[in-house]
Amino acid sequence: MKDRILIRDLQSRIGGTVTVGGWVHGIRKQGGVVFVLLRDRTGIVQIICKPGYVKKNNLRNETVIYVTGEVIEDSRAEGGIEIRMKSTEVLSSPSKPLPIIVNDKAEYQNIELETMLNNRVLSLRNPKRNAIFRLQAEIIDGFRTYLREEGFTEVTTPKIIATGTEGGTQLFSVDYFDTLTYLAQSPQFYKQMLVGSGYERVFEIGHVYRAEEHNTSRHLNEYVSLDYEMGFINNEHDVMDVEEGFIRYLFERLNATQKQVLDLYGMVLPVPEKIPRMSVREACEIIEDRFGKKTWGYDLDPEGEKLICDWAADEHGTDLLFLTEYPRAKRPVYTMPLESDPEYTRSFDLLFRGLEITTGGQRIHDHDQLVASFEERGLDHTQFDYYLDAFAYGMPPHGGLAIGLERITAQVLGLQNVREASIFPRDRSRISP
Amino acid sequence: MKDRILIRDLQSRIGGTVTVGGWVHGIRKQGGVVFVLLRDRTGIVQIICKPGYVKKNNLRNETVIYVTGEVIEDSRAEGGIEIRMKSTEVLSSPSKPLPIIVNDKAEYQNIELETMLNNRVLSLRNPKRNAIFRLQAEIIDGFRTYLREEGFTEVTTPKIIATGTEGGTQLFSVDYFDTLTYLAQSPQFYKQMLVGSGYERVFEIGHVYRAEEHNTSRHLNEYVSLDYEMGFINNEHDVMDVEEGFIRYLFERLNATQKQVLDLYGMVLPVPEKIPRMSVREACEIIEDRFGKKTWGYDLDPEGEKLICDWAADEHGTDLLFLTEYPRAKRPVYTMPLESDPEYTRSFDLLFRGLEITTGGQRIHDHDQLVASFEERGLDHTQFDYYLDAFAYGMPPHGGLAIGLERITAQVLGLQNVREASIFPRDRSRISP
Repeated sequence: MKDRILIRDLQSRIGGTVTVGGWVHGIRKQGGVVFVLLRDRTGIVQIICKPGYVKKNNLRNETVIYVTGEVIEDSRAEGGIEIRMKSTEVLSSPSKPLPIIVNDKAEYQNIELETMLNNRVLSLRNPKRNAIFRLQAEIIDGFRTYLREEGFTEVTTPKIIATGTEGGTQLFSVDYFDTLTYLAQSPQFYKQMLVGSGYERVFEIGHVYRAEEHNTSRHLNEYVSLDYEMGFINNEHDVMDVEEGFIRYLFERLNATQKQVLDLYGMVLPVPEKIPRMSVREACEIIEDRFGKKTWGYDLDPEGEKLICDWAADEHGTDLLFLTEYPRAKRPVYTMPLESDPEYTRSFDLLFRGLEITTGGQRIHDHDQLVASFEERGLDHTQFDYYLDAFAYGMPPHGGLAIGLERITAQVLGLQNVREASIFPRDRSRISP
Repeated sequence: MKDRILIRDLQSRIGGTVTVGGWVHGIRKQGGVVFVLLRDRTGIVQIICKPGYVKKNNLRNETVIYVTGEVIEDSRAEGGIEIRMKSTEVLSSPSKPLPIIVNDKAEYQNIELETMLNNRVLSLRNPKRNAIFRLQAEIIDGFRTYLREEGFTEVTTPKIIATGTEGGTQLFSVDYFDTLTYLAQSPQFYKQMLVGSGYERVFEIGHVYRAEEHNTSRHLNEYVSLDYEMGFINNEHDVMDVEEGFIRYLFERLNATQKQVLDLYGMVLPVPEKIPRMSVREACEIIEDRFGKKTWGYDLDPEGEKLICDWAADEHGTDLLFLTEYPRAKRPVYTMPLESDPEYTRSFDLLFRGLEITTGGQRIHDHDQLVASFEERGLDHTQFDYYLDAFAYGMPPHGGLAIGLERITAQVLGLQNVREASIFPRDRSRISP
């Protein structure tokens, strides 16, 4: 391994002898010479094989090999470089026929979602699909880098919890030494408590769990949530300002480091100067006026989200739109009501190309107001003492949000199903691989 | 919020008028003047109050306030700076008596662990305790930064799994739409599969779950695991080399950015040039020879780990020690045996100041050898097809490790119980807060 050279670094080694290692991406004969295409995590290079090598080693696609040889320029090879094999070592040979074809460019389009996920390890070797999670890693790191720069502390909060954030619906139960516990639907309560414990600004990147029965292209039962929560805010717009800054930073970074991936998917990512903000009431009126679609209770269904995004793209040339002031009945118990009209709240969603990728808002920070809000919902607030108590000892005004990692990934690349943006997705019927 | 100044930034504002915000850390009277100590996430500053202010506002410790006033130099104040109050706003008053004292320096020593954890939000406001998780965030970021630099891709793998990595012991069960599933004990299988899916080098920072019955100072039932896995290795020493580089990088970084915290805890963190490596057999012999302690089966119990670390500190002046070549019977089914003596393995632990903080090794990458290893253990390998199949289509030699986040944090700061290094720990009897 010590002397293995990555394929992307071969350009600087022309004329030298190097060792490369990877998977056999393809084998072809031309004019009596056998060429092997070798794939590592950084690219593909053509190898000019010794006579008889492929046959002698029973070389097939996806065999793992080391090749030592001379790096030579050849304008006919992809990347202008090839390696003339001197010696080689087979590290691992496929012991079963490949159930799917890795090196077929058409495979990416033609494979069924279920087949692709059933054969996840192989299907991820397709370079175009492999790139999804390299880009996703950049989103994760972008979130973290931007928030650390803004004075946020990274935290980890428990996923095994005694009570849900919303009182018991859509929770997976865990047998915890014969005690009934649940998997956290969000780090909501804990991140608020950590604002109050003196960190003021915290973020977490972690799994959350939703026992939603419906199997749609937008839902996963286990997904990664990018959460932050911040204290000493004036109102929910401070929370949106941070997200706006993050989105600008992220899109600039993806354009700089992930241009090749965006090109593979035929996507562009305009960096927004400002993200328009409009109340969900206004959005509902526009949807009725322009598209003749009736909405109920000032909330949007998936079709409504698509329509208002179409409108925003046409009218404002934007892929992104903040909708604000959702009705109280549609938001969680801890959401801060508007002083001017307590039936509405200091809350928002961020829509991106027709899909909600963020829910956030200002939270109630007054202990008595929060207890009253639990009571109004008919929730037994004594079950939530571990949370409510945190508000009894001095809690600053605060708010925050959660971004669905798989959703933002899917929207950046134009993927049709959020499962394509989860390495090993969990849904209503899938717990394997 | 827009104009709020953090306390650490006041030095550059002397003579100006600023707004600060935070918690009342203490109130004292001196010569007819009332002073408030205000605490935010960056420090504490003294406020010279207006006459009658404290009484009029019923100000108490932990009240959350904004204060606008003039920044003045005063050598008698801590940090040489104070603020002369012009105006103020109370954001949140405690509505209950404080169950523990936040601002008492002795509190840090005197509080019982259970009381401290039961009142986690308040106890974290103690500046010394608060600092633990700022340092922990640096460990997390250090892990990520170092591995990204080394060409690793960050991944997220499922925590809801169909079968355990070791065949069903110490697993928490989850009711997944009436299907029995489990919480992952480690991302082991998935990170190996991702090496094979073409990423070659992956890391994950995520929760893992161990249904261990025993309640010790070294165990948590939910903890954060820093995992990496790397392909195209020669043997387990390549994996150790990466960890050695990470430890050097991390310790240098903590010495640079967390010096104040290390000082608070009276700890120093020597950066190791090399970490000694010795076989566990040799370690057992030393323990018997030097300390007269009998060990069994070439494995160490907690006392043995302490003794060999004492020896290594004395003999080699090191806080860190790699133990290698554990017996096969003591290591997981996927561990690569030594060619020269298959009863021992290409595995290692890293001990740090008497505690194991890492387990790692080279893994079996040959499909048939791995299936045989499952069979030898009496495990039904067909249950693990989703994992074993990944080895049937070309898998490079690989290995990896896991570092316990709470353990390394505890050892860096000299904490006696790993629970102190978990924000909201989960143990045999604790699921709240």
